[in-house]
Amino acid sequence: MSFSFQIQLLGTNSALPLYGRNTSSQYLQFGKHHFLIDCGEGTQHQLQRYQVKRNLISHIFISHLHGDHVYGLPGLLGSYAHFSRSSSLTIYGPSPIKKMLSTIFEASESRFSFPIYIIELDHKKAVHLNIYQTTQITAFPLKHRIPTIGYRFDYVPQERNIKKEVIKQYELTIEQIKRIKAGEDLIIREGKVIKNKDLTFSKYGAKSYAYCSDTVYDEDIIPYITNVNLLYHETTYLSDLEKEAKERMHSTLGQAIKISQKAQAKKLITGHYSSRYYNLEEFEAVAEKSSQDVSIGSDGNIYNF
Amino acid sequence: MSFSFQIQLLGTNSALPLYGRNTSSQYLQFGKHHFLIDCGEGTQHQLQRYQVKRNLISHIFISHLHGDHVYGLPGLLGSYAHFSRSSSLTIYGPSPIKKMLSTIFEASESRFSFPIYIIELDHKKAVHLNIYQTTQITAFPLKHRIPTIGYRFDYVPQERNIKKEVIKQYELTIEQIKRIKAGEDLIIREGKVIKNKDLTFSKYGAKSYAYCSDTVYDEDIIPYITNVNLLYHETTYLSDLEKEAKERMHSTLGQAIKISQKAQAKKLITGHYSSRYYNLEEFEAVAEKSSQDVSIGSDGNIYNF
Repeated sequence: MSFSFQIQLLGTNSALPLYGRNTSSQYLQFGKHHFLIDCGEGTQHQLQRYQVKRNLISHIFISHLHGDHVYGLPGLLGSYAHFSRSSSLTIYGPSPIKKMLSTIFEASESRFSFPIYIIELDHKKAVHLNIYQTTQITAFPLKHRIPTIGYRFDYVPQERNIKKEVIKQYELTIEQIKRIKAGEDLIIREGKVIKNKDLTFSKYGAKSYAYCSDTVYDEDIIPYITNVNLLYHETTYLSDLEKEAKERMHSTLGQAIKISQKAQAKKLITGHYSSRYYNLEEFEAVAEKSSQDVSIGSDGNIYNF
Repeated sequence: MSFSFQIQLLGTNSALPLYGRNTSSQYLQFGKHHFLIDCGEGTQHQLQRYQVKRNLISHIFISHLHGDHVYGLPGLLGSYAHFSRSSSLTIYGPSPIKKMLSTIFEASESRFSFPIYIIELDHKKAVHLNIYQTTQITAFPLKHRIPTIGYRFDYVPQERNIKKEVIKQYELTIEQIKRIKAGEDLIIREGKVIKNKDLTFSKYGAKSYAYCSDTVYDEDIIPYITNVNLLYHETTYLSDLEKEAKERMHSTLGQAIKISQKAQAKKLITGHYSSRYYNLEEFEAVAEKSSQDVSIGSDGNIYNF
C-alpha cells in the first residue's frame, strides 16, 4: 500500500459549480490512509476525472451541511453500492447529517452492500477522533452561519527502523534489534548507554494538515492549526470585500494569510472562491506579494507535504 | 418568447455518471413553456455545459426517487436561490419527495428567494395536470422497483389565425375577423357557410412527447403513449439481457422498440444505459436494422418535433 502525504483539491468554488471550478471536496492521502473531506455535488464526477482510487477512501469528513459541501454524498454512496463496495465507510459531520442521509436513503429505498457508520460530532468543542494509532484527527469548531467543523490531521510516527550502520557497528543480535525497534536503548560493553533515537530513524517525520472551510476570520482556531505543514483556509473574497465576508461569515484572502502566519503554518492553500471571480488573477497577485508561502488552489491541484 | 418543441438529453447513463454520460435529466421546451424532467446529480453542471437558459424552467417533473433521477435537485434549487431567482418553481413527483427535500433544506438551513411548490402525485393511477390551457400533461404509472411515474405532454393548439388570402377574397371587416378568430364560421352573400377550419390555420399542429423511465416492459402504458410524436423509453440493456432487465425492472432496446411500435409512436429515443456499455455501437446497430424510427440518445442530443 502506498504511503504518502498528499492533498488533491477536487473543487474550489463556493456555493455552486462555475468556471470549471466544482464545489468543495478534497482527497487526502495521509500515510497509508485515504480520506475525503467534504463532498459537494459532482464530487464523484471529480473523483473519476482525476482518477482517484475511490475505493481506498475509508473515512469522509464533512465540515457542514450547506449543499456545496455535502450534496454529492448521497450519490457517491449510491455509486459505491452500485459497484458492490464491501469495506466499511465512516462519515463524520455535524448533526443532523444522520437524519438527512437516512431520509434520503429511505426515499430512494437504497440498500448498501457495505457498512456505513455515521458519527455526529459536537460542533461546539474540539473532539479527538481515535481512528488509527499514528493518525490523530481533531475536529474543532469553526464560526459560520450553521454548525461547522474544521479538521486537523496529525501523523505521529511511531514505528522506527534501525539505522543500517548501527547493526554493523555494534554487531547487534536479532534479539537486540527487536528490543531497539520496540524502543529500548542499547547498553554497550563499557556500560555506556546509546539512546534509541541515535540508533533508529523514522522514514516520515511528523506531518500535519488542517482544513478550515467555511469560516469567518476567527483567531480562536489558532491553537488547532498551529504549526501545520499545510493549511487549507477558505478565501471566498478578496480583501476589498471584508465587510461582505464578515456579514456572510466567510473570509478574505488577506485574512487567511494573516491567520496562517499567526498560526505559523508552513504553507497556505486557498479555495472556496465566490462566483464573482471569473478567474483568480487577483488572488495570484496578492499571493505573490505575500511573505507567507501561499498557493492559490485550483481544481485538480496536488500538494505533497 | 421563443416557441418550439424540443427535447435536449442532459444525461443518458443509468445509476451513476460514466463514460461521459451523466445520470438522467432532460430539458423540454414545449411551445412557450420550459420544463425539466428528472434531475440526477450533476444536472446543474449539464445545464451550464449546454448553455440552457435554466431560469426559464418553470416546472420540474420527477419520475422516481432513485438517486440517478433526483440527487441533483437540491443543488439546482440551491443555485437558483444563490442567483436570487424570483419566479416560482413547481415540482411534481411521487411521495415522499416533499419530506426528502424538506429534510435536506432543514439540514442545510436553506432559504429560498422564490416560491417552491412541491406536488406529490399518486403513482398508482393516471393523473391529468392542469398547468396551461394549450398544454395537457398526464402523469401515469410505470412499473419499477419503487413508485415511478411517466409523463406525457400534449400541445393542443387553440388560437387560430385567419389565412391572409381569405381576408382579401371575402373583403372581411375587422368585426368579421374577430368573430372568425373566436371560432365562428363565415356566412357569405348567397347564404353559403364557409367553415372556420377553411378560413383559419394553426401555426403548430398537435404535438406530443412521452417520457418513460424507469420501467420494466409493460404494455399497460400503451394507452398513455399512443401516437406521440416522440417517445423516450429507457433501454438499460441490449436484448441478450432480457432476464436481468426483468429482474431489475428495466427494459431492453428490443422491448422499447416493440412498445413504441405497438403505441404507434412516430419516433423513439433511447437512454438510461447500463454502466456495462462503454460505448453504444451495439445499440446503434440494432437501431439501424429496425423498421421503427429510433435514435440512440446521447448526452446533449437535441430533438425537434
